[in-house]
Amino acid sequence: MNDPRNAPCTLEVALGERSYPIHIGPGLLGDPRWLAPHLAGRQVMVVTNETVAPLYLERLRQGLAADLEVRELVLPDGETTKTLASVERIWDALLAAGFNRRCTLIALGGGVIGDMVGFAAACYQRGVAFVQVPTTLLAQVDSSVGGKTGVNHPRGKNMIGAFWQPRAVLVDTDTLATLPPRELSAGLAEVIKYGLIRDAGFLAWLEAEMEALRGLDAFAVAQAIERSCALKAEIVAEDETEQGVRALLNLGHTFGHAIEAHQGYGNWLHGEAVGAGMLMAAELSCRLGWLGAEEVARIREIIEAAGLPLTAPADMGVDDFLAIMRLDKKNLDSRLRLILLRTLGEACIHDATPTETLIDLLENFPRR
Amino acid sequence: MNDPRNAPCTLEVALGERSYPIHIGPGLLGDPRWLAPHLAGRQVMVVTNETVAPLYLERLRQGLAADLEVRELVLPDGETTKTLASVERIWDALLAAGFNRRCTLIALGGGVIGDMVGFAAACYQRGVAFVQVPTTLLAQVDSSVGGKTGVNHPRGKNMIGAFWQPRAVLVDTDTLATLPPRELSAGLAEVIKYGLIRDAGFLAWLEAEMEALRGLDAFAVAQAIERSCALKAEIVAEDETEQGVRALLNLGHTFGHAIEAHQGYGNWLHGEAVGAGMLMAAELSCRLGWLGAEEVARIREIIEAAGLPLTAPADMGVDDFLAIMRLDKKNLDSRLRLILLRTLGEACIHDATPTETLIDLLENFPRR
Repeated sequence: MNDPRNAPCTLEVALGERSYPIHIGPGLLGDPRWLAPHLAGRQVMVVTNETVAPLYLERLRQGLAADLEVRELVLPDGETTKTLASVERIWDALLAAGFNRRCTLIALGGGVIGDMVGFAAACYQRGVAFVQVPTTLLAQVDSSVGGKTGVNHPRGKNMIGAFWQPRAVLVDTDTLATLPPRELSAGLAEVIKYGLIRDAGFLAWLEAEMEALRGLDAFAVAQAIERSCALKAEIVAEDETEQGVRALLNLGHTFGHAIEAHQGYGNWLHGEAVGAGMLMAAELSCRLGWLGAEEVARIREIIEAAGLPLTAPADMGVDDFLAIMRLDKKNLDSRLRLILLRTLGEACIHDATPTETLIDLLENFPRR
Repeated sequence: MNDPRNAPCTLEVALGERSYPIHIGPGLLGDPRWLAPHLAGRQVMVVTNETVAPLYLERLRQGLAADLEVRELVLPDGETTKTLASVERIWDALLAAGFNRRCTLIALGGGVIGDMVGFAAACYQRGVAFVQVPTTLLAQVDSSVGGKTGVNHPRGKNMIGAFWQPRAVLVDTDTLATLPPRELSAGLAEVIKYGLIRDAGFLAWLEAEMEALRGLDAFAVAQAIERSCALKAEIVAEDETEQGVRALLNLGHTFGHAIEAHQGYGNWLHGEAVGAGMLMAAELSCRLGWLGAEEVARIREIIEAAGLPLTAPADMGVDDFLAIMRLDKKNLDSRLRLILLRTLGEACIHDATPTETLIDLLENFPRR
């Protein structure tokens, strides 16, 4: 890996003519060299939220040349705002500004901003350019890469959306300095996920470095982001629209989405729900005879070490889980599809879990 | 050309792995052979409107196998319903039915239904299959082919949408029997457009056959649809996302969209506005020295023979046109781009029309 203390590292998401770079390093935000090559024309709209705007909007502005026509839109913060109504606000602002097909949207914020701005770009005049500038660990390692965009629907998470790739992803690692610890832990859930599904060596490295990561050690954090992005870029390049291997990135997400939906979006952070969900997937993989008790214990320990929950919500019964999980996007023709672990570092798509095994897991998984 | 009195004709839109057939002929609707190969799975939702449902929904139902899970959604009719709110109704219905990624939407109706259902399919769970079953001439020759989907915004037509290709287009020519004459004329505007932009021989054929077409002569109508679809398929295959040649299909549309937007969607039919708009584009091409007066006269005559308006709305001033045209999707970085005619059968994209020439046209074009 590059030493991020010296120079930014650049990875590529290889998607033919839709390929794009991920730049990772400190100090990218205010430096015009990183944004300029990815703007489609002179019209630029920066979309961010009320939490991020006071922290980083001015710095981003400094990274935009003076001759651009720049507009800014500041939306409310939080998963509950990830709605079609918010995306309509972006479209209204673009049309009010008279922006054309050659405009560029910049998503400055976490996963919610990135998903909404990407979806707004996908559908504005049938598709315009956008750049991801993720400011949370979760967005930096996962949601900003790979072109999944969209919004929630009262009946399910990310039910409305599009595959639409950004022109570039700029990960300014300096932005993590202002991230609340709870959000940092949520991001670490997705980092752990990459180790679990595809890279046992990375998982072992994470076990060793978890304290450094939670302490925001710059070198450890940059390495974790780079490795996560590299794994994500590999998977997306193999399977852009989730016909196969990309579904593995959803380890823990089917259980996690059910928790998020049941508890009301935003009460559990996405990463927290994924953390508990990965442990549920691990326990189920153990019941199917794939993981040993010792491996499940390792998974429990690293999830705990990352500061993530090890329990499901106390008020969530078996039927609550099943009802929401049956609506999951991965399901095909009414079979429940789950991402499970064959072993540490190897995930699989499984649509033949016996219902009684699943119910047994859901009944016995600890609540709090 | 095939003789459509014998067997349906099939054309292909050649887009690599997104290629699909256009089947054209009588009696396709109730015949299961045409729909079945294009369904992604067992879940099927037919979306139509209140005008078309009593005429053709039952016939379409007969074309769907008994073991499918079929839902139906009947929306109100008209261009004013081409809104995001209508598309949300489709998404709500899909989610209420628990439909997954392997579902198929069927658009049964005219251009409004086709555009909305296509957009709903493009964004439901980030993209599901859909089939176009156009029942108006305009949808059969133009809007159902090529994957342009979307809805109107109060500030502009088709401003929100996506490129999303159908799995197939089924043109049952029997459905034209119930089409009001005004709608038939509107469809003929797009048919004439193909002759004007790309096929002078087809234009001459249309001049000769216009009476037969307006009288719904089955052979003439089928030939006109086939030739129009073949020309459209060629152009779309060359330029799926309108980076170049596909823009030529917008002949008359920049003026036409301005008329539609100013008059309120639905008061002028889209094809009527395009008819007047093509004449405006022809007059402007004449002012630029490309068309002679005799060629403009031929265009005026065929537009009139098709039963289309030759005048702009009396209450639309020069500024009304300019204000709306400046928001057109084809414009890039604030230059007005127009599709004009170099000669009969050859269109071009032009972004250097002197403003005074355009204003002179807009001042002098007849109103009523």
